[in-house]
Amino acid sequence: MSHFPWPDIWYTHRVSYGETDAMKVLYYAEYLHIFERSRSAYIRAFGIPYTEVEERGLILPVREAGCRYRAPARYDDVLHIRAGIRVWQRASFIFDYEVYNESRDILLATGFTQHACVNPQGKPVAVPEWFYDLFH
Amino acid sequence: MSHFPWPDIWYTHRVSYGETDAMKVLYYAEYLHIFERSRSAYIRAFGIPYTEVEERGLILPVREAGCRYRAPARYDDVLHIRAGIRVWQRASFIFDYEVYNESRDILLATGFTQHACVNPQGKPVAVPEWFYDLFH
Amino acid sequence: MSHFPWPDIWYTHRVSYGETDAMKVLYYAEYLHIFERSRSAYIRAFGIPYTEVEERGLILPVREAGCRYRAPARYDDVLHIRAGIRVWQRASFIFDYEVYNESRDILLATGFTQHACVNPQGKPVAVPEWFYDLFH
Amino acid sequence: MSHFPWPDIWYTHRVSYGETDAMKVLYYAEYLHIFERSRSAYIRAFGIPYTEVEERGLILPVREAGCRYRAPARYDDVLHIRAGIRVWQRASFIFDYEVYNESRDILLATGFTQHACVNPQGKPVAVPEWFYDLFH
Repeated sequence: MSHFPWPDIWYTHRVSYGETDAMKVLYYAEYLHIFERSRSAYIRAFGIPYTEVEERGLILPVREAGCRYRAPARYDDVLHIRAGIRVWQRASFIFDYEVYNESRDILLATGFTQHACVNPQGKPVAVPEWFYDLFH
Repeated sequence: MSHFPWPDIWYTHRVSYGETDAMKVLYYAEYLHIFERSRSAYIRAFGIPYTEVEERGLILPVREAGCRYRAPARYDDVLHIRAGIRVWQRASFIFDYEVYNESRDILLATGFTQHACVNPQGKPVAVPEWFYDLFH
Repeated sequence: MSHFPWPDIWYTHRVSYGETDAMKVLYYAEYLHIFERSRSAYIRAFGIPYTEVEERGLILPVREAGCRYRAPARYDDVLHIRAGIRVWQRASFIFDYEVYNESRDILLATGFTQHACVNPQGKPVAVPEWFYDLFH
Repeated sequence: MSHFPWPDIWYTHRVSYGETDAMKVLYYAEYLHIFERSRSAYIRAFGIPYTEVEERGLILPVREAGCRYRAPARYDDVLHIRAGIRVWQRASFIFDYEVYNESRDILLATGFTQHACVNPQGKPVAVPEWFYDLFH
């Protein structure tokens, strides 16, 4: 049973030819692109576009990323990606992801990304209250 | 017989798994990445790094690109890419490319990119003399 | 005034961070990925999924591709891509593309891809009647 | 002090424009492409090309991947990537990676990939002796 962070969102993505490789499956680095698309959708859904987050002076670079590949995805497959924020730390937070097949009954991959909060000069800052409040 | 622009350079690239697609060949968009790598090598070889070109206030966005695919490239293939500047216009110029197999006896693809000269504010400018002189 | 092939479809795509480059715009090779997504949607909309086209023994490799870049697209921009088949030749056909901004009043890019018809052994074949009929 | 697996190899990679993003740094998914290039070089250096590994009936899909991003890389940067196999399990093994700047005095990123051994039908198999022996 999966204890996924709450609130969560679901993002849908169709696998293109350009994302596959010679093993005829979705190439492993492409999952990180899809994670990015789903967390971008998350921030937009619960709060504001990430472009506005940056305009307010908050940059969220990835400090760490990981992915477990359980079953392959193939060209033209429709994927459903679940995204949520698992934990808030003082100056960073962690997104969790689950990638499902079209009927959402097979978990294809799980992953996470840890994001630092930095200012436009690249200095670490504490998670701003206005940003935290967007998701609570 | 090929009339390729002079001077030219040769750039070598090995096809990675991530660049292939489910047809088990180098994906068609990847050729534009390889063109970029080879023209970057060209500018560096005959002149200065492109980073310095930008520091001097000259940006070279692509206005048009084209590629003819004659024979496929596959995972782990070593490619030799020839690059040269075909024509100089008032405020733009055109790079030509040829992609060969490892033994350079099969022409796999040909292509071109047209580049505008713009200043950091994005306004078109004439090709600067210092830039033109680098290659003559 | 644009004389775009008929029938056409519109495909929507949002620019991700991973598709941008250090000029803060959609990287030029990414347009070919988006063209692929839109022609895949076209074939699916008017006919059958491309996976089924391949199962029927018809492969459609790109023989030539071109793109003119008129105005940049940026992170998080919503793009509308129009796709249609411009011309049918004996053993190939040409897709045309137009990329518009979200309000569809600025044409950002135009492009084309020429596709050969080949069998699973890679031999050129005439455009099959069943495939042609899908779009007429 | 770093205890890196032995034997190791060093692989060199120059950051292209297409690999950067709008933050003007190497996009986080691109590290997985570079890891792939370096482990491909590793297998080639100590043994045989990965193409031949697959011809012998051994496929090595990624089961898990992770990367810690410590300092950004930028366009035109020369990176040195160290790769080695950290641990051999019954039916899988783990590659470790370190990404350094050009002068090799700044560690930009560390990462790993776990690979399963499967046959062409996709069934897990024990690490073949001939494959293990290549690196010992």
